[in-house]
Amino acid sequence: MNQPSFSLRLPEGDDLPRKVCDNCGFVAYENPKIVVGSVVRHEGRILLCRRAIEPRSGFWTIPAGYLELNETPEEGARREAREEATATLAIERLLAVYSVPRISQVQLIYRARLAVPEFSAGPESLEVALFDWDDIPWDDLAFPTVHWALAHDREAETGATTVPFGNPAGASGDAMPDGRSLKPGEF
Amino acid sequence: MNQPSFSLRLPEGDDLPRKVCDNCGFVAYENPKIVVGSVVRHEGRILLCRRAIEPRSGFWTIPAGYLELNETPEEGARREAREEATATLAIERLLAVYSVPRISQVQLIYRARLAVPEFSAGPESLEVALFDWDDIPWDDLAFPTVHWALAHDREAETGATTVPFGNPAGASGDAMPDGRSLKPGEF
Repeated sequence: MNQPSFSLRLPEGDDLPRKVCDNCGFVAYENPKIVVGSVVRHEGRILLCRRAIEPRSGFWTIPAGYLELNETPEEGARREAREEATATLAIERLLAVYSVPRISQVQLIYRARLAVPEFSAGPESLEVALFDWDDIPWDDLAFPTVHWALAHDREAETGATTVPFGNPAGASGDAMPDGRSLKPGEF
Repeated sequence: MNQPSFSLRLPEGDDLPRKVCDNCGFVAYENPKIVVGSVVRHEGRILLCRRAIEPRSGFWTIPAGYLELNETPEEGARREAREEATATLAIERLLAVYSVPRISQVQLIYRARLAVPEFSAGPESLEVALFDWDDIPWDDLAFPTVHWALAHDREAETGATTVPFGNPAGASGDAMPDGRSLKPGEF
């Protein structure tokens, strides 16, 4: 078997060079990635996970990770909390949209609460704990966006902030508002 | 040269089957894609583009398209308006976050206005025009999310809606709030 071998080349009709396989011509389009996560509250305290994996192993984070194919962001945020903290979330609303262009990330961060008061360290976490605001391990947070999200969540506690719009209730984007379906390929 | 040939297989240490190249073992990870776009106003009218390309060639849309690597969503929304309508936008705020899970899309739609009162059809558009609300070609819009965005923009005109948070001013996510830089690989 050959080893993977890609060169940057401009595919026909494209605007930017892409990674093209030297063996078969497969074009490996790379796109920005979506991270979904939640600031999770329970009885006034905030749930944090200490990472068991790189990057930033040993540091504290909110439950968050890459959105998978065919997930809504809310589904992805709930899945990440299940995986990292064996927690079941009730998502309240979108808190923040962050962009980290250097690593081509867009982050959608939700406000959530524990739907049931149970959690434990999943396989990607060393430990999971609830923190009062003053006890948050500020010097040992994993990422800048964790700082931002915690601060924004506290600001949102005042109630002065409202959410952006999302999909109309029950709509997944497969049909026009009058009920006409779009066929695959029409998207 | 071989032809591209991929099979669904579970890479070691992964949770889900991925497309793996039969020739070289390259794992083609597929992730949801981010669409960025804008509802663009000028003197009370709304800018729409009639698509010159599939899908939905001949139908009307707001300027929108896939976010590229290393772009912020706002940069991407401005680029799409340049490409599709040769228009220069002043982005006002995030209007909506839509999710279309069947095609693994998350859409970030902004409110914007023309920074200069000039536009024309770019190579991906048949024509570009400003519409009064009552003249919008509702039956010939390209996608459900175009409907949603136009309706939400009109609702937002009342001023009752505020935005979600974004990055702190000037911050791109490369450093902690105290100025410590994160190294590549620490993300």
